[in-house]
Amino acid sequence: MFPVNTWYVACSAGELGDAPLGRTICNRPMVFYRAQAGRVAALEDFCPHRGAPLSLGRVCEGKLVCGYHGLEMGCDGRTVAMPGQRVGGFPAIRSYPAEERYGFVWVWPGDPARADAALIPHMEWHNHPDWAYGGGLYHVKADYRLMIDNLMDLTHETYVHATSIGQKEIDETPCVTTTDGDEVVTSRFMQNISAPPFWRAALRARGLADDVPVDRWQICRFTPPSHVIIEVGVAHAGHGGYDAPAEHKVYSKVIDFITPETDRSMHYFWGMARKFNPQDEALTAQIREGQGRIFAEDLEMLERQQKNLDTHPERRLLALNIDAGGTRSRSVIRRLIAAETAAATEAAPPPA
Amino acid sequence: MFPVNTWYVACSAGELGDAPLGRTICNRPMVFYRAQAGRVAALEDFCPHRGAPLSLGRVCEGKLVCGYHGLEMGCDGRTVAMPGQRVGGFPAIRSYPAEERYGFVWVWPGDPARADAALIPHMEWHNHPDWAYGGGLYHVKADYRLMIDNLMDLTHETYVHATSIGQKEIDETPCVTTTDGDEVVTSRFMQNISAPPFWRAALRARGLADDVPVDRWQICRFTPPSHVIIEVGVAHAGHGGYDAPAEHKVYSKVIDFITPETDRSMHYFWGMARKFNPQDEALTAQIREGQGRIFAEDLEMLERQQKNLDTHPERRLLALNIDAGGTRSRSVIRRLIAAETAAATEAAPPPA
Amino acid sequence: MFPVNTWYVACSAGELGDAPLGRTICNRPMVFYRAQAGRVAALEDFCPHRGAPLSLGRVCEGKLVCGYHGLEMGCDGRTVAMPGQRVGGFPAIRSYPAEERYGFVWVWPGDPARADAALIPHMEWHNHPDWAYGGGLYHVKADYRLMIDNLMDLTHETYVHATSIGQKEIDETPCVTTTDGDEVVTSRFMQNISAPPFWRAALRARGLADDVPVDRWQICRFTPPSHVIIEVGVAHAGHGGYDAPAEHKVYSKVIDFITPETDRSMHYFWGMARKFNPQDEALTAQIREGQGRIFAEDLEMLERQQKNLDTHPERRLLALNIDAGGTRSRSVIRRLIAAETAAATEAAPPPA
Repeated sequence: MFPVNTWYVACSAGELGDAPLGRTICNRPMVFYRAQAGRVAALEDFCPHRGAPLSLGRVCEGKLVCGYHGLEMGCDGRTVAMPGQRVGGFPAIRSYPAEERYGFVWVWPGDPARADAALIPHMEWHNHPDWAYGGGLYHVKADYRLMIDNLMDLTHETYVHATSIGQKEIDETPCVTTTDGDEVVTSRFMQNISAPPFWRAALRARGLADDVPVDRWQICRFTPPSHVIIEVGVAHAGHGGYDAPAEHKVYSKVIDFITPETDRSMHYFWGMARKFNPQDEALTAQIREGQGRIFAEDLEMLERQQKNLDTHPERRLLALNIDAGGTRSRSVIRRLIAAETAAATEAAPPPA
Repeated sequence: MFPVNTWYVACSAGELGDAPLGRTICNRPMVFYRAQAGRVAALEDFCPHRGAPLSLGRVCEGKLVCGYHGLEMGCDGRTVAMPGQRVGGFPAIRSYPAEERYGFVWVWPGDPARADAALIPHMEWHNHPDWAYGGGLYHVKADYRLMIDNLMDLTHETYVHATSIGQKEIDETPCVTTTDGDEVVTSRFMQNISAPPFWRAALRARGLADDVPVDRWQICRFTPPSHVIIEVGVAHAGHGGYDAPAEHKVYSKVIDFITPETDRSMHYFWGMARKFNPQDEALTAQIREGQGRIFAEDLEMLERQQKNLDTHPERRLLALNIDAGGTRSRSVIRRLIAAETAAATEAAPPPA
Repeated sequence: MFPVNTWYVACSAGELGDAPLGRTICNRPMVFYRAQAGRVAALEDFCPHRGAPLSLGRVCEGKLVCGYHGLEMGCDGRTVAMPGQRVGGFPAIRSYPAEERYGFVWVWPGDPARADAALIPHMEWHNHPDWAYGGGLYHVKADYRLMIDNLMDLTHETYVHATSIGQKEIDETPCVTTTDGDEVVTSRFMQNISAPPFWRAALRARGLADDVPVDRWQICRFTPPSHVIIEVGVAHAGHGGYDAPAEHKVYSKVIDFITPETDRSMHYFWGMARKFNPQDEALTAQIREGQGRIFAEDLEMLERQQKNLDTHPERRLLALNIDAGGTRSRSVIRRLIAAETAAATEAAPPPA
């Protein structure tokens, strides 16, 4: 259902305070915490003593202490100490490579030997003076690929988000989908249109007129395993659209990290990195609130869609031109899963 | 578990406004809406594009528009249009015969070719100046046949509804059960008794003394697939009971349309059509409120009974004289299901 | 999973008022009520008429009356009467031996012929002028044996109950575990320590200084099937500890009756019988409130532990010295279940 030899976002850095955090990633119950010097660590959420969830414990001088009987666990999955016990023979639990980067904790659920922090995709907007970021987290009871489909076909904005970012021109303007290796891009450029309410508010915040024709763009970029980053914005018409100088446009990236929880549920990290008025914290809060409200409109649709698909597993869905982004992203995912399966088969001892 | 080549009540006409309504009938998820000229339509609740539930969409000039990507569905289950798409090859979804009649929407879950609106049972009280109607809907997590049993054996009123319509004379007065084709009737006539609180209130509303002996009747009539209509009322004793002139009695019909949702749950449409004070809308509201409260007393009993039966599927229940109404109604249902099964087998191609 | 030819606590005497009480014990749905002269009775919660739960009925002159159609059930599981019916041929339902003793209703879920009230363990503190008792009931979604483990290894107090009864000396002081037939005892004696908050409050209530060194003891006693009674208390240091005269100590018994509901859930009856200030009812209420709050801290831990164990049924947990009490108690339980299984096999007819 998902590749595992890859980095997923497990939580935002802000979620991980002094207390450990329990979260299931790719069907693996994990506990996340800050070990020595604040470095993030991820382990199986299972105390080797009696099976208690370590996430109900606490962190003490960089060691995770089980909240049931005080076993102290090291970030390598080996027991460090336990009151009154010799712990040398205690079975180890799994530890997962984890890295804090770009305001998130990333975890590698698969083979630790293959984990390479350099594979975490670069987020140029993080801690950059030209950019501001705000976002949130939704739990959605649906296959994570339904969210990829959703984000790689923005015609749904016209219907699901009719009062904020939707407009009929999205439907009327064909999209172009291209694939480059594991990256899939779906683009749509609309010219000389009215800005919808969300973008009118952004123009006003930027000090630009909101009642003149604009060019609008949506460039959805899927990268494995399940990130969708969307360049969005509007420019006053006649200044070059996407390529217009900064003073004529509002430009943002919608950031979507979609992490499978189980085969039928996901953690959906959504946010917006904007490249205008970066110091305006009130605007950041206002955009986050608005985006959160808009993105919540998708949740019932996806969860009910999942139920429908579970009821009719035999039905083949349509793959129209607008679906090309999702369809090709799923192809990439299938190829990665197949490669992992093949590697696992090769690695196994040959039959006698 | 239920016949499908028959009409069931899907919703009240009032439930179906401008927005589509999703409801599962006989294990089939359906969407109901008002198509051209307000005519009701019923379809599978499944968009052929990506499986979204059509009931989350909206109705636009008589077409059902999917709320996810704007596919326009016709009431025959064929796609009419979709922005930017040629829809000729889109797979059709099932459409179900649906009719609005007597203040309800009726649906035929089985073979559309056999649907005949003339088979919808006539409700003489609907829009008739002598009658007033009020009712409601309960969702009950139990096999719909447990509700038929309930309504065809009113001795339960003595115990479940002790403070409103129950009285010991129900238990003490034998019932008579007759069958005529697919119709089952259980009757009970009680003479020279005190009226219980519900009927005392009805007598007062009618301007009749409530503290004199009355005759009371209960004539429960089952018709397929799962309608139970009960003639009920009281007359001042000595005037002919059930046959007494209108000025000496209060006379109503309890209307029960019981629609299977799944094998273990039902939509229960209950109401009362009364043949006295028909213009008194306050009385209609008051009776509906009272009936709703009384009928709610059955729900926990049926749901817990269902759980008990699921725990002991091997146990045979007793079929006493008081159970004859339910037992015979179940026989009719079994016969109808068997006939449908036989017809389906005949229709299938013979084995090679 | 549990022996059945034994007495379990089904409810407190106070829970069983005029109305019947439905409760599942050892996977058997039961109804408890007060029959003739207030004597407790336990039956299957299943009316032989139509399978309604008898616990929704009422008690009338010592007979349990079904709340659906008025069947009157005797405490032997045979129908006594039903309005308008001859009940001689009605099938009987199971009746379970039940006894009221020590403020609780005890039930024997297994073979009634083997039930002997003399096997109910004696509670010397009940209705005794030197003792006071207060307690409550928690429903816990975990195997009942996880609660036995919990109570037979009190090192968890240091972590789960850190702010009330936990202290590091529990961890630092080895326990001694002994077995005598079916009884398992784990003891720990701590000397010259500070009393933790719960015991400081108890000392003050007794009029004793709470800021002087104390000796503290914990003697956990498991008896089948699943009772854990723990002698607890503190004495001013230098007066003999556990054996100190009453004027120098506060002494209680923690009472734990753990009754399996299903394979994965339990009714947990907890309480404290104290042998000081027995007339002080305000103190009884205060201790019950405090104990209830403290014992509630275990619930999430056990329920999450159960989920973890269900996820990894193949894993063997550690059995350390601190786990000896639970491990040996489980051995006793296994032996009792094996004996019941063997007896059942012997009783069965030999294969032909």
